[in-house]
Amino acid sequence: MTPPKCTICKAKKTYFPVQVVLPSYNLKLCREHFLEWLEGRVAHTIKKYRMFTCEDKILVAVSGGKDSLGLWFLLHRLGYEADGLYIDLGIPEYSAESREHAQTLANRLGRTLHVVDMREELAPIGEMRNWTRKPPCSVCGTVKRYYMNRIAREKGYTVLATGHNLDDETAVLWNNTLHWNMEYLAKQYPVLAAQGPFLKKVKPLCLVSEKESALYTIFNRISYVKPECPYSTHASSLENKRFLQQLEEARPGTKITFYTGFLKNLSPLLHEPLKSTGVSLALCKVCGEPTTTEICFLCQLKQKMGKI
Amino acid sequence: MTPPKCTICKAKKTYFPVQVVLPSYNLKLCREHFLEWLEGRVAHTIKKYRMFTCEDKILVAVSGGKDSLGLWFLLHRLGYEADGLYIDLGIPEYSAESREHAQTLANRLGRTLHVVDMREELAPIGEMRNWTRKPPCSVCGTVKRYYMNRIAREKGYTVLATGHNLDDETAVLWNNTLHWNMEYLAKQYPVLAAQGPFLKKVKPLCLVSEKESALYTIFNRISYVKPECPYSTHASSLENKRFLQQLEEARPGTKITFYTGFLKNLSPLLHEPLKSTGVSLALCKVCGEPTTTEICFLCQLKQKMGKI
Repeated sequence: MTPPKCTICKAKKTYFPVQVVLPSYNLKLCREHFLEWLEGRVAHTIKKYRMFTCEDKILVAVSGGKDSLGLWFLLHRLGYEADGLYIDLGIPEYSAESREHAQTLANRLGRTLHVVDMREELAPIGEMRNWTRKPPCSVCGTVKRYYMNRIAREKGYTVLATGHNLDDETAVLWNNTLHWNMEYLAKQYPVLAAQGPFLKKVKPLCLVSEKESALYTIFNRISYVKPECPYSTHASSLENKRFLQQLEEARPGTKITFYTGFLKNLSPLLHEPLKSTGVSLALCKVCGEPTTTEICFLCQLKQKMGKI
Repeated sequence: MTPPKCTICKAKKTYFPVQVVLPSYNLKLCREHFLEWLEGRVAHTIKKYRMFTCEDKILVAVSGGKDSLGLWFLLHRLGYEADGLYIDLGIPEYSAESREHAQTLANRLGRTLHVVDMREELAPIGEMRNWTRKPPCSVCGTVKRYYMNRIAREKGYTVLATGHNLDDETAVLWNNTLHWNMEYLAKQYPVLAAQGPFLKKVKPLCLVSEKESALYTIFNRISYVKPECPYSTHASSLENKRFLQQLEEARPGTKITFYTGFLKNLSPLLHEPLKSTGVSLALCKVCGEPTTTEICFLCQLKQKMGKI
């Protein structure tokens, strides 16, 4: 059987027969046109949601995984000025490998990779877990958000970009929708505007599926860390992704319809009515970073661990 | 192994060992307490959503299936004045059997069953299908809504009750949510207020699952038509139900959380902003019933078929 023809070039370039089948868009693309299509799609997302312009200084939070590294590469390809930030959580083997992939890409792009080493800052995440009742993924999220915002602001970046893809966004949306958690639904958007000490945050891959993101990274020969984080206990999040994948296979396009429909139809209704539920922010009395409590979570942890 | 004990009576009444396990509510109930629990639950739903009072004259639309017949029986048990309406669509065998079950219950309750026979009114549904491009389930729905509203109004009823259960409502909600169809989401509620020529419509079983509804009908020895309608082509609706059932089994309570969360959190936001999208209604120039077109669908069909 001959492979299906590329929808764009009709596979004239038969020397590269890799085909990407995208049933959600009724497209079959060769490697070259897949890359072109994906980059165009992300460029459009950036413009549509007014994420940033060429004037911006962008900091990409990179984990060493396919999404964030692919995003960094893609933004560079589109001509944006983007550096990377890697937060080394000190997870044995996993962190060292992830950091290496991030550094390799930084070298290839000729851009700066900022690194925060949690072992120097406070302690490896594995040890921090013992000093709090928060679940590990929640501690990790808090730590990352803290340093992402702090480093970006201190180093003079104007926008923070993360590699959340369509599957991530849909799984969260699905969970928030099942519980009709209106506060979380109101916050879920590809762009969070800058607010006081918080930098603007954007998710340029929000319309790119996990599969598309992986292919983009692989086709561009970017090495990335493959296994899930060994501390990850995201059982419910993975379960949600599995369910949505089942739906997607039964009816291609389900995820993108669900997510874009939400952005178009529900989101605009939520921003106004729920504005009043926004928590009020103060600055941490110890480090000066934004917090909802008197002393931020990280400084509280530092105190408990006898580090300050 | 001894059967699990009833949460309420601790299975002292061992002469009736039937147990209903309800993981969504963390309950195990004997037959007697299941019936009591379910009736209390529906009574609460009726009051909570202000569906009707003892002053109302209720018309229950009965199809001959477990839900609508169980509902009629239950309303009677709760002391409400409720008659039945059966629309005989002239589906070979299926309609005759359904009608018989409805008549049997009417006799048992000593209440009136109104019957509209489509073969006398216009034609059996199987023939009507050939005169329109609408899918069969859509034709059937339109015909039923037309006569339900017309008969109820003409006979002086104040409320129309239908047997839609939690599984029905959740499947529709799920489909409307996947597409974020805000107009349909705004309309989905256990009560639709009376509006001009339209009677008030209520769904007292909206918080009762399909399984609970079937058990209620069986335990009360009400005979009902078991197979699905032979014309039913509800592939997507059944697919949605299957999918939600999977979720329910993985996390008991998913359906009720999803549905009640919607009613509590999203519904109130939708009623105001979407009011303006309501279509304007006129009265059909032929029969005088409410319609969105000059001549209603049924009269148009009658004209096409040369019946008027």
